Amino acid sequence: MQMTDLIAKKRDGGRLSGQEIDFMVQGYTRGEIPDYQMSAMCMAILFRGMDDQETLDLTMSMVHSGQTIDLSPIQGLKADKHSTGGVGDKTSLVLCPMVAACGLKIAKMSGRGLGHTGGTIDKLESFPGFSVDISEERFFQNVNDIGIAVIGQTADLVPADKKLYALRDVTGTVPSIPLIVSSIMSKKLASGSDIIVLDVKCGSGAFMKTPEAARELARGLTRIGRLAQRRCAAVITDMDQPLGFAVGNALEVKEAISVLKGEQRGDLLELCLTLGGLMLTEAGMAADMEAAQARLLEAVKDGSALEKLAQMVRAQGGDAAPVYEPALLPQAPVVLEVRADRAGYVERIQAEQVGLVSMHLGGGRVNKESSIDLSVGVVLDKKVGDRVAPGDRLAVLHAPSAEKAREAAEQLKACFRFSDSPVPARPFIIDIVR
Amino acid sequence: MQMTDLIAKKRDGGRLSGQEIDFMVQGYTRGEIPDYQMSAMCMAILFRGMDDQETLDLTMSMVHSGQTIDLSPIQGLKADKHSTGGVGDKTSLVLCPMVAACGLKIAKMSGRGLGHTGGTIDKLESFPGFSVDISEERFFQNVNDIGIAVIGQTADLVPADKKLYALRDVTGTVPSIPLIVSSIMSKKLASGSDIIVLDVKCGSGAFMKTPEAARELARGLTRIGRLAQRRCAAVITDMDQPLGFAVGNALEVKEAISVLKGEQRGDLLELCLTLGGLMLTEAGMAADMEAAQARLLEAVKDGSALEKLAQMVRAQGGDAAPVYEPALLPQAPVVLEVRADRAGYVERIQAEQVGLVSMHLGGGRVNKESSIDLSVGVVLDKKVGDRVAPGDRLAVLHAPSAEKAREAAEQLKACFRFSDSPVPARPFIIDIVR
Repeated sequence: MQMTDLIAKKRDGGRLSGQEIDFMVQGYTRGEIPDYQMSAMCMAILFRGMDDQETLDLTMSMVHSGQTIDLSPIQGLKADKHSTGGVGDKTSLVLCPMVAACGLKIAKMSGRGLGHTGGTIDKLESFPGFSVDISEERFFQNVNDIGIAVIGQTADLVPADKKLYALRDVTGTVPSIPLIVSSIMSKKLASGSDIIVLDVKCGSGAFMKTPEAARELARGLTRIGRLAQRRCAAVITDMDQPLGFAVGNALEVKEAISVLKGEQRGDLLELCLTLGGLMLTEAGMAADMEAAQARLLEAVKDGSALEKLAQMVRAQGGDAAPVYEPALLPQAPVVLEVRADRAGYVERIQAEQVGLVSMHLGGGRVNKESSIDLSVGVVLDKKVGDRVAPGDRLAVLHAPSAEKAREAAEQLKACFRFSDSPVPARPFIIDIVR
Repeated sequence: MQMTDLIAKKRDGGRLSGQEIDFMVQGYTRGEIPDYQMSAMCMAILFRGMDDQETLDLTMSMVHSGQTIDLSPIQGLKADKHSTGGVGDKTSLVLCPMVAACGLKIAKMSGRGLGHTGGTIDKLESFPGFSVDISEERFFQNVNDIGIAVIGQTADLVPADKKLYALRDVTGTVPSIPLIVSSIMSKKLASGSDIIVLDVKCGSGAFMKTPEAARELARGLTRIGRLAQRRCAAVITDMDQPLGFAVGNALEVKEAISVLKGEQRGDLLELCLTLGGLMLTEAGMAADMEAAQARLLEAVKDGSALEKLAQMVRAQGGDAAPVYEPALLPQAPVVLEVRADRAGYVERIQAEQVGLVSMHLGGGRVNKESSIDLSVGVVLDKKVGDRVAPGDRLAVLHAPSAEKAREAAEQLKACFRFSDSPVPARPFIIDIVR
């Protein structure tokens, strides 16, 4: 078998067999197939597409390029969640404790972020002593005991994706549905959960610009998940502004705590109820979305969701005191209010740009070696649709210095777009794809 | 400027500016742009195409990636020829002396072949002492004195194409009209001739399978040539069998000599009259094709075409005696006749396969370091349309040993396809594109 022939086959609109795809994926992972052939193949796939069988074969071949996690030592159904990436996305911090409080197991493998803020692991390290460097035995034990645990991603999980994603990133071959689907689903399948729910972001700041494109991706993801014998559902959400109010590691933890306490409503809660509802119904633990959401809200109301977060933090060596007293979370030395210069209605808040403000303040990693400042970031006061008068507070910046805060204030103001007339409400949850 | 952005632009159907193309070509040639980005770009170009301006910009940028040859020390118009590659293609050996005998200058830069037989240089080395390692001054002087000379290709002629072609060859990105056009025309433009005629092969064994595809390529080539201020014309020829009768270095020289002597008619002579006719009319040295071809045939009849070959051989240090006594050319130790097993009409002779027979006998290079046996090869007796009875001679093999000859005989028989009914004649010259 020759890689050149496989490229020509796909280029000319042919189907790749499972054997051909495996030859390509394993050969590329082992370094026997060079980058220049793989990038030409990715471009050919971008133009020609892949059918469901090819996409499934590609996904499974990527799964088998490295280690997989066998969650069978954990009793019961395990659920996992993935988001196509958003700014201020602290969903896992709210959703996982909520769902675990309802009795569905969460055995989550998570990564450190590269970009605007840290990943879920970085955020959880806002709790002093918390660690994801736990053994697999301990991880299984914790999920069996309290229903929830988070472990760091093993280095050898889907090595094909690590290599392939880095290549696609610099060769214009990211926006291909089968390549996106196989990249996302290979990692989710390798991590072993029975139920996978997906949050597909849509909007000018997101990778999928239109609801149609987002729906196509969502359908691709759930179809491949089901073909791989998992229970799958996806939600398509609007990303024309950051999710919730906070962007920054400890600030997002604080926001997650207030949602878990029932103190904050809005898009973040809505998203967690929807994703959680899908998880519980897919698990057969609720008859329908209404019943599922009622259960999730009850877990907020009776404090069990918040308590689940505290249990998880303690079970992984952390100090859970900040769960009850958020002022104990890392605090930035400088706090600066950003106020409106003009009157109007907030029409849009450029999420990507807000993310960059947080990153410039030190809240995100520029490269793998960067250290991260957990305390800094942005907390919005106004969101899309809100009416603003001159002098109204738009946001509060948490910064390492007065100078950085002043720079960030200018950048943040530029993220807001105002309209003179009221901005019509748009649904945040655009669609659900099962 | 970022290569990733240029890939995305072409991927999404955009036009690349001259500046962008130059950034890409020069960056790639200098090794600043990696293979994996260039191969993704080539695949995007394959799918999206390039308009005339982009193709011209690409071609000129490739021309300027290395040295160019300034032929202005040679008086008068200079003509050059290119073929998209055929088996048994000894056209230059016949065409160039013929045209030079009519007074049009031929200052030819040529290469050594990789594949079925050697290139024009290898073939000419069948004349003992002949050398293309002559200085540029001597090259110019010879063309001024006798109207014709052949020099080896300088190492630094269009380095962008050397690198790019090697990449395209292993990434499934050869069959793209703008990439083929820029590859061919950059070398022809860099070699400096005023008139360029092109032989575009068409058929199952050729790169362009249909007359439509061949016509599209021919039009692209001549359009870019004219946009680069050269006089250009192309001929589309059928390649469902080898050109002429001989495949092998000295054997092809012998065949060329018999055409120049007026002893052999058929497709090879027809092609040389057509290409030569296009050269003379483009040069304004003949009113029309009929007049041009009459002049070329006169040069054969009066012996001046053959004499031009002898002059060129002598002027480059060679012994011209074999021009008059072809038995002095290199002779293979073993000669074996291949005879027909059955009756029928020859329907097709797989040109590529016949080329491989010659290569296996030692007549072609497997890699750049291979040495080449000038004496070996195949001489066909029957061509498409010929009637064959059992025991009729199909071809004669010239081999280095009896064992090699026996192997080659089996391979050669498999190249012939027979029909029970007469095979309708097909035109060899399919079209002329100006």
